[in-house]
Amino acid sequence: MSGPRVVALGGGHGLAASLRALRHLTEAITAVVTVADDGGSSGRLRQEFDILPPGDLRMALAALCEDTTWGHQWSAVLQHRFGGEGELSGHALGNLLIMALWELRPEEQVRGLDLVGRLLNTRGRVLPMALEPLDIEAVIEAETPAGTVARSTVRGQSTVARQPGVVRSVRLIPEAPQACPQALESIKLADLVVLGPGSWFTSVMPHLLVPELRQALCDTPARRILTLNVSLSDDEANGYSLAEHVVAIAAHAPELTFDHVIADPQVVRSSAERTALDAAVERVGASLVLTSVGNPGRPGVHDTLRLAAAYRDVISEQGL
Amino acid sequence: MSGPRVVALGGGHGLAASLRALRHLTEAITAVVTVADDGGSSGRLRQEFDILPPGDLRMALAALCEDTTWGHQWSAVLQHRFGGEGELSGHALGNLLIMALWELRPEEQVRGLDLVGRLLNTRGRVLPMALEPLDIEAVIEAETPAGTVARSTVRGQSTVARQPGVVRSVRLIPEAPQACPQALESIKLADLVVLGPGSWFTSVMPHLLVPELRQALCDTPARRILTLNVSLSDDEANGYSLAEHVVAIAAHAPELTFDHVIADPQVVRSSAERTALDAAVERVGASLVLTSVGNPGRPGVHDTLRLAAAYRDVISEQGL
Repeated sequence: MSGPRVVALGGGHGLAASLRALRHLTEAITAVVTVADDGGSSGRLRQEFDILPPGDLRMALAALCEDTTWGHQWSAVLQHRFGGEGELSGHALGNLLIMALWELRPEEQVRGLDLVGRLLNTRGRVLPMALEPLDIEAVIEAETPAGTVARSTVRGQSTVARQPGVVRSVRLIPEAPQACPQALESIKLADLVVLGPGSWFTSVMPHLLVPELRQALCDTPARRILTLNVSLSDDEANGYSLAEHVVAIAAHAPELTFDHVIADPQVVRSSAERTALDAAVERVGASLVLTSVGNPGRPGVHDTLRLAAAYRDVISEQGL
Repeated sequence: MSGPRVVALGGGHGLAASLRALRHLTEAITAVVTVADDGGSSGRLRQEFDILPPGDLRMALAALCEDTTWGHQWSAVLQHRFGGEGELSGHALGNLLIMALWELRPEEQVRGLDLVGRLLNTRGRVLPMALEPLDIEAVIEAETPAGTVARSTVRGQSTVARQPGVVRSVRLIPEAPQACPQALESIKLADLVVLGPGSWFTSVMPHLLVPELRQALCDTPARRILTLNVSLSDDEANGYSLAEHVVAIAAHAPELTFDHVIADPQVVRSSAERTALDAAVERVGASLVLTSVGNPGRPGVHDTLRLAAAYRDVISEQGL
């Protein structure tokens, strides 16, 4: 199997779900990963070493480990977080492995990640979306006890994700970071690019806020898929319907069109929502692929094989 | 290549040198490693998690990594110590990898190490000499400014190694720790066991102080080799001649005999020392293999290929 060249953009669990599905279909996978995390193990490493936060990169690498006992063991070890209350507590081993390679090859972040991939014999390639650590600033609306709506500006991915209220817009700091050149190249050469699923404002949207990356997504001859979440209880976009998720993308990147929007029918809660979703999907130029992609045993999580089937249908239909 | 079953006992750089040499000759290598380190990264992990100090185990695993580009890269990554001044500073990545497996498999230290070995595709097997962390207590003699000799008792491997003066004897705390059963089994089934080189009192001698391990070394039908250091400026045994190194072993384990003692002629500084060495070697029942095993470019370090040649000569001579 070699398969079509696919680039998946996102971060965290959502991107990992997409990668696990895509690896059933192709070996030519490139993951392009957000680098704005400032919480937990990544936040501490970012502060201690002034480097890209490794957490989302680690999750993507773990998702692309070999589909063998050996690969599954490596994946579990990468994801393991140290317990206790000491200096290692909470650090994920995979974050430390990435860190070690970056220390061994300073100024060569992409080569370091490629080397981690070789050491783990991962399928595909994992790239950061930008070459410098980023911060996310969000405008959040929350209802006050008096019943009015208060608007506040909040900085830092972990703070944004935790803050009560609904995110209305996000921006990056610095505002126009340099994109990872290898990520741009992979998008240019792709047959298919996939954006989402994931935390909508802190993992998915940031890719559209890096100017070169957004331009590359607009310019690529590849088919473009937008994969929506299977749960609407995402902290950041709590209360957003699927249609509003799509509209938020269009609001942040009006010139970007998609070929397909993948959504699970269970998340469309009424016929009014369905009508709104159809309109939003049309607004971004796409056709709606409404098919069951949720994991019946784990609400809010994509089912790897069902999502793989949805991607495969698109790939077959497009003759990729 | 499968080759004779060899067990190498020691710790630190000395054991690693022996393992790098032996892997030229056989795949059936078991490293049995001291677990008394209480300094640096190992000391901090031991304190934070109440586990075996992983440092000497890591060095043995790094020495047994594949002899390919992939294996050499893994070896370098395992040995990498984090820089900076933060919470990770000074920790070796390989120590953290071992730690992660021990956390994933509590109470299964040997299985955890076997799994690390599989993840790294190492040759052979790495075992701790005992299943609980140990402490070393040494009697040290140092000259006072008045010209008399003062005797002090010092506890902790890192303190013993740093303390000025000459170690006269060592003991373990607890005094009779349980040996690792798989280490005992490997010694029983070995064709060849090798003790040393290394820090004489803190890496080599401890093996003779674990009662079951010492008994297993006495009982094994395997040929026994004692490999002496190529430098006499080891902090702990500074001033000891090669003969005195051998005599110290005999003093701590009088009933243990060897078949061969390997020494480098450059470290025999006079004909009187040669006579004393012959006598000491005879006292432990061995024949002396006096052959160049030092690394010409790195004083005090064994040359992997020359040491391999010395071991191979013994293996051939014994028809193993």
